[in-house]
Amino acid sequence: MELESENLEKVSFLVLGWLRVKRLPRNFLSQVVEIAEHAKKIAKDDPRKVFHSLKVGLALTLVSLFYYFQPLYSNFGVSTMWAVMTVVVVFEFSVGATLGKGLNRGLATLVAGALGLGAHHLANITGKIGEPILIGIFVFLQAVASTFIRFFPRVKARYDYGMLIFMLTFCLVSISGFRTNDLLDLAHKRLSTILIGASTCLVVSIFVCPVWAGDDLHMLVALNLKKLGNFLEGFGDEFSNSSEAKESENDISLLVGMNSILDSKNKEETLANFASWEPGHGQFMYRHPWKQYLKIGNLTRQCAFRVEALNGYLNPKTQASKEINGMIEEAFSNMSSESGIALKELALAIETMTMPSSPNRHITNLKMASKNLKSLLKSNFCENTNLLQIIPVAAIASLLIETAICVEHIAEAVNELASLANFKQPDSNGVAENSSKDEISHVISINGPTLEGATGQSLTP
Amino acid sequence: MELESENLEKVSFLVLGWLRVKRLPRNFLSQVVEIAEHAKKIAKDDPRKVFHSLKVGLALTLVSLFYYFQPLYSNFGVSTMWAVMTVVVVFEFSVGATLGKGLNRGLATLVAGALGLGAHHLANITGKIGEPILIGIFVFLQAVASTFIRFFPRVKARYDYGMLIFMLTFCLVSISGFRTNDLLDLAHKRLSTILIGASTCLVVSIFVCPVWAGDDLHMLVALNLKKLGNFLEGFGDEFSNSSEAKESENDISLLVGMNSILDSKNKEETLANFASWEPGHGQFMYRHPWKQYLKIGNLTRQCAFRVEALNGYLNPKTQASKEINGMIEEAFSNMSSESGIALKELALAIETMTMPSSPNRHITNLKMASKNLKSLLKSNFCENTNLLQIIPVAAIASLLIETAICVEHIAEAVNELASLANFKQPDSNGVAENSSKDEISHVISINGPTLEGATGQSLTP
Repeated sequence: MELESENLEKVSFLVLGWLRVKRLPRNFLSQVVEIAEHAKKIAKDDPRKVFHSLKVGLALTLVSLFYYFQPLYSNFGVSTMWAVMTVVVVFEFSVGATLGKGLNRGLATLVAGALGLGAHHLANITGKIGEPILIGIFVFLQAVASTFIRFFPRVKARYDYGMLIFMLTFCLVSISGFRTNDLLDLAHKRLSTILIGASTCLVVSIFVCPVWAGDDLHMLVALNLKKLGNFLEGFGDEFSNSSEAKESENDISLLVGMNSILDSKNKEETLANFASWEPGHGQFMYRHPWKQYLKIGNLTRQCAFRVEALNGYLNPKTQASKEINGMIEEAFSNMSSESGIALKELALAIETMTMPSSPNRHITNLKMASKNLKSLLKSNFCENTNLLQIIPVAAIASLLIETAICVEHIAEAVNELASLANFKQPDSNGVAENSSKDEISHVISINGPTLEGATGQSLTP
Repeated sequence: MELESENLEKVSFLVLGWLRVKRLPRNFLSQVVEIAEHAKKIAKDDPRKVFHSLKVGLALTLVSLFYYFQPLYSNFGVSTMWAVMTVVVVFEFSVGATLGKGLNRGLATLVAGALGLGAHHLANITGKIGEPILIGIFVFLQAVASTFIRFFPRVKARYDYGMLIFMLTFCLVSISGFRTNDLLDLAHKRLSTILIGASTCLVVSIFVCPVWAGDDLHMLVALNLKKLGNFLEGFGDEFSNSSEAKESENDISLLVGMNSILDSKNKEETLANFASWEPGHGQFMYRHPWKQYLKIGNLTRQCAFRVEALNGYLNPKTQASKEINGMIEEAFSNMSSESGIALKELALAIETMTMPSSPNRHITNLKMASKNLKSLLKSNFCENTNLLQIIPVAAIASLLIETAICVEHIAEAVNELASLANFKQPDSNGVAENSSKDEISHVISINGPTLEGATGQSLTP
């Protein structure tokens, strides 16, 4: 009996083990499938990422040709690898980032190479014993100074990579000088191979499906305004049918959009930094007022804070009593719809780069609606209720009024941008609308399908 | 007459030119002085930045010794420069960042080196003509795949640098194979020099005045809670002397503190990422729950949004009529003081790593105050006024109640952290208070003098 149970145990153990082993490749397979699906999603959300990968491959293959052909190789020898390194390190997603890194690398190599040669020459004079000591001191001082300078906020923002390459090249040139005789040749080869690598990156980056950081910033700011506008318009509908307030899928996608607005500060600043490196392209001249986009972005976020707070009050649990709702809901609905429409018009003006109409009709409507709401609130209709019941209504009213003020500020900032960047005058043939549709589909491809709910809706300017 | 005026013109031109030339060095000098003052400020705000610069200098000098001494140099030859490069590129401000980069670089070099050797071997079989074509294809495919993988969010967060080095090493090893015969030697030298460089960085980074990202995150989260607490306590005072509301210097420094809370999301996430690389140190074990800090940080920011909105209502222009103020200001003052004190107690609990008292006395007080405010609002005292006048009061009340709810959530999150990280039990000898003072002065040195207004105040636990 005991023997039998022992056998049974052994058999079951073997079976379990076998099942586990059998499941192993299936688990592995399911993981591979998962990763593949993830990759497919990334590629579908932004096909430019696939193109970028192909561009990097192309640039690397081009540069590696220097290794394969004897006449090219004989010029630079082993230094050719600096060109390969430069491509790997410098090639970034947008033209601005690539250009910024390339210029940083090139200039830093030039300056540091010259200084390194000077340091080597100076140390060389002092003789065999003094040389390593003096070079050691130079390297130490240079490393301390460069590292500290990297903490300067303005340097960190634009020249951090340049400082790194400065340190690197200075060390390489001055230290190598101790072992290599033909130091000038080393410095010259390093500089020219880096120039070859960087220019390969730039040519591929600019001429093969270019990705401009400036375009992205432009569309991101417009898209955020539009998302906020859609959200506010959605509020308008919710106020008028507040009885059947429910969380639909559309609401959730709108909420995701809201969070992306609140979190976009960092992205906007990075893009503005890259954009400032970019040459003129398409509709943008060289010194396009990129900083103004940051201002509009900040105002959009301030407005989004208010809208977020508003959203908290639209929870059915905190709805004020019906009688108040009945009296005031039209004013609320009016306010938020007008705010939304005004924001969407501003977004369209940015997208199509046309002057927003001035005086803006929707801003005027909004001011009127704000005035109406205030006068409605002045009439004493709170006698029968206690303050606790009025709080949500009062808070919503107050937030709507503040939102309207924010929208006015945004309109001012957009007008400022329009005059700084010489936006074109609107024409009445509906050309703006047509061109905007193209750009909207472009934005969707930048920002992925999660935003389709927010951007797929038709725009009524 | 004409001649004289011409002479006069010439003389005045010369004088002006001379003055300009004379001013040139003075302008240059004033700029140098300005930069020096800026540098002095950075050094004073955070002396660790100076130490970091010295540490980089030290590590570079140590590694460059390999060049100077023949026995060391003869082992690696020109490859020694990889060690120098590694130090320049890998040495970061905090131990976690340095460790993360070092591990990324080392592992990526190992894997890519092995794959590169394999690719070279495979290509070698195909003969003289097929070799460059096959290697070209390998390099292209590898570059495309690696670049695309870098877009995966999880890879981007932790292994971006590793992927870069993977591409670099694979290209170098497989392409160089076409020209170098002793490829194994090249791969081996590259790996060992990188290991030398990375371990030099790590030793200097850990054993010479280490900067732990985990410590910074810990103190940053606690400091933000404390700043918010101070701000809320300040409101309490302002409600009770609302007649003499004025913008003092202290208020401005508090506002600057508020903005730094709202903008700290990115910094917290970066620090948490670095901290996750760090080994156990000081009071922190290896798997310290760093993610919980992010949760507390997010809740702090949500609370800060409400407090920001509250701040808007304390503008004297929007003050509600005096009669309402008189009735309700005590309740307001009570609410915000209790919220502030509760937050500061939680901050102290994090700083000193002691269990927060449970049930928390101030949270209980806060709940009571919230209840009182609600019952006060229920009493009908709005009969004589219109809704527009009540709005600010209602909004303040609503925001204070929401702030109190936020504070409760923060308290829960801190309790969770305390149990996850095994905070010590509080003792009644006031030991916690002493140790906290040391840490507060440390925090001031991290965050600079702008926060002194917010942190220099005494803590009443």
